[in-house]
Amino acid sequence: MTATEHQGLDVEAVRADFPILSRTVGEDTPLVYLDNAATTQSPTSVIEAMNEYYRTYNANVHRGIHQLSMEASIEYEEAHDRIARFIGAAGREEIVFTKNTTESMNLVAQAWGREHLEPGTAVVLTEMDHHASLVPWTQMAERTGAEVRHIPIDDHGRLDLERAAELIDDDVEMVSVPHVSNTLGTVNPLSTLADMAHEHDALILGDGAQAVPNRPVDVAALDVDFYAFSGHKMAGPTGIGVLYGRESLLESMVPFQFGGGMIERVTLDGATWAELPWKFEAGTPPIAEGVGLAEAADYLDHLGMDRVQAHEEQITQYAHERLAERDDVTVYGPPPGEDRGGLVSFTLDGVHPHDLSSILNEAGVAVRAGDHCTQPLHDCLGIPASARASFYVYNSTEEVDVLLEGLDTAREIFA
Amino acid sequence: MTATEHQGLDVEAVRADFPILSRTVGEDTPLVYLDNAATTQSPTSVIEAMNEYYRTYNANVHRGIHQLSMEASIEYEEAHDRIARFIGAAGREEIVFTKNTTESMNLVAQAWGREHLEPGTAVVLTEMDHHASLVPWTQMAERTGAEVRHIPIDDHGRLDLERAAELIDDDVEMVSVPHVSNTLGTVNPLSTLADMAHEHDALILGDGAQAVPNRPVDVAALDVDFYAFSGHKMAGPTGIGVLYGRESLLESMVPFQFGGGMIERVTLDGATWAELPWKFEAGTPPIAEGVGLAEAADYLDHLGMDRVQAHEEQITQYAHERLAERDDVTVYGPPPGEDRGGLVSFTLDGVHPHDLSSILNEAGVAVRAGDHCTQPLHDCLGIPASARASFYVYNSTEEVDVLLEGLDTAREIFA
Repeated sequence: MTATEHQGLDVEAVRADFPILSRTVGEDTPLVYLDNAATTQSPTSVIEAMNEYYRTYNANVHRGIHQLSMEASIEYEEAHDRIARFIGAAGREEIVFTKNTTESMNLVAQAWGREHLEPGTAVVLTEMDHHASLVPWTQMAERTGAEVRHIPIDDHGRLDLERAAELIDDDVEMVSVPHVSNTLGTVNPLSTLADMAHEHDALILGDGAQAVPNRPVDVAALDVDFYAFSGHKMAGPTGIGVLYGRESLLESMVPFQFGGGMIERVTLDGATWAELPWKFEAGTPPIAEGVGLAEAADYLDHLGMDRVQAHEEQITQYAHERLAERDDVTVYGPPPGEDRGGLVSFTLDGVHPHDLSSILNEAGVAVRAGDHCTQPLHDCLGIPASARASFYVYNSTEEVDVLLEGLDTAREIFA
Repeated sequence: MTATEHQGLDVEAVRADFPILSRTVGEDTPLVYLDNAATTQSPTSVIEAMNEYYRTYNANVHRGIHQLSMEASIEYEEAHDRIARFIGAAGREEIVFTKNTTESMNLVAQAWGREHLEPGTAVVLTEMDHHASLVPWTQMAERTGAEVRHIPIDDHGRLDLERAAELIDDDVEMVSVPHVSNTLGTVNPLSTLADMAHEHDALILGDGAQAVPNRPVDVAALDVDFYAFSGHKMAGPTGIGVLYGRESLLESMVPFQFGGGMIERVTLDGATWAELPWKFEAGTPPIAEGVGLAEAADYLDHLGMDRVQAHEEQITQYAHERLAERDDVTVYGPPPGEDRGGLVSFTLDGVHPHDLSSILNEAGVAVRAGDHCTQPLHDCLGIPASARASFYVYNSTEEVDVLLEGLDTAREIFA
């Protein structure tokens, strides 16, 4: 099924796949889970795939000749192929399993950064970067003497592309940008930025944590050099993240961590490294988690990523419009009608986001309140914190209505 | 129950706790799982604890005010307390959850090593170190100009303590040693080595991957400064490891990775770090895995670590003696009667360990064949590879007999 002929998700059928959605908050308040940009829920198929792993073929991978190890190795290694297909990578050589997006970003900043940054070079970030991009690059720049530049945002939370074109010059070695902002919802023009970077022989790293779960992503079409995302935000398990890297780049890089599994030959004096992607997976890897992640990709493909995106757009648009029509609410990020990730961050006049989140929790509604790991962006916005409602395949517009009723309750309490 | 009054494990009852043990290899050959030094199996209680997490309170931790996040945060944070109690640490401040032992070792080698190693300083390792200790330290020494020294082993696979006393001098900043060798089974005198290190103002890092699962470990009694181990070798899940560190040391260290969760305050120019242990847990941590690991500690404590150790000793002793009485088998490591971890590595004359492992697999027996991530040790032993049988709480002496019958079969095939 293609995007043009999609019929929309059958939300009731989808909800039946997620056991957690039948729980209540307190005595009998139904759970309205709108914290999906932090962690999504897992369907039964994902939970059962990991169960089956532990119950029938749990064993260490790569090095074993016995039956369990062979079964586990095949599943774990093929999970890399599965994820490569999911994001349009050439093959498992380009897919490194890490522990989370943050580790994927640190891997590039540390392993690649140490070899390529020095005084006179620069890294270009954005004002809307997640701490997982901002801090690794800032630290590595400090260590190496490289400069850090930030692409500013306009009043609607869009990147200033004219400034970007000025900032990305021949000194720049790396551009690191979120594909979708986890706070603003802005969808950044990644392939445009990739072109800018490549014109100056710089590389581009996309933080895809908020994109891969919600829309079709094709790293080849985006023309990114590195791309990072997490399992637990795409209906998969905790404890696993992914780093996509062009094979030639990963091939040329020094490993990030050292130990079993990433070694070809060791003597007391030195070592040579295993083939890709194992060179970057030191020690016993997240085996059950890899199995669960592959199953999550199957689940999302079964729904159809075009339909997932259409569903997210519809519900986000609805939430955005309903929030924007209130005169006591400020919504951050692009205006209604523009492309936006499946989330809306906002503030309610006179109510601290933490208090709002507490009150909403009484109504069974889970939203996030805080800086969403984007403190500098909140500094730009002139607020210490915001509330964020974020949606996934199992959310409905009726749940958005429950959120809005919660705002009325908060309004009354703080009147 | 104390060690003096232990009655031994009821192996049949223990086996009933582990669903995987009822599977067969091939049509109807019962599984004899003797690859526990690579990965142990998980009891139903551990599998169910992670199930329950995903089915009822899966959410991101630390930063959430809503019900699910509060429940997940409590369980995840208390898992640190649980593991602190399991190894005699002072509290959660000293327990960092990593992705595996290898990451724990890399964390110390990289974050601590970068600040403390320089030309004129030295790191002391051993000839029996796992690659996860050997390679991170060798690489960091190369980067910093520090020297690496190796404590040699004697003909019975014991550390040469006289040489150790000479090698550990005032130039030494760090001693990194396996508590129990994953290939030889040697139990190293960690507190003696800690004394040697501390006399010269050096620190000691114990690789406890093969000790924590099999015997009572008390980091305070051992007087180690850092100590590393994994979940998947102690009846827990994949995707999680532990680094114990003295609070004052962890407090003084620069973080290893940067991102969400380990931040106190970030601006575009710099950052300050969160309190321990979160300072070292960047990004969404292994939440389900932490829950599973705490449950594994509960399970082992319920069996009683004294009884676990006694069971391991009994079965390892039996295997060792039966193997040693064959004139076509060479067993590596300490002689029968000496303290030894729950494993026996050996070679069968004229049969490559890989072939042996294949033949044993036909009989349902899972052993590991290879270098067990200790290539330099195998170089010392003058062999390219060995076979390793390793035991856990659910193994019986009858299973050792199946292993020995398998050696006879291999003998006949290669006669």
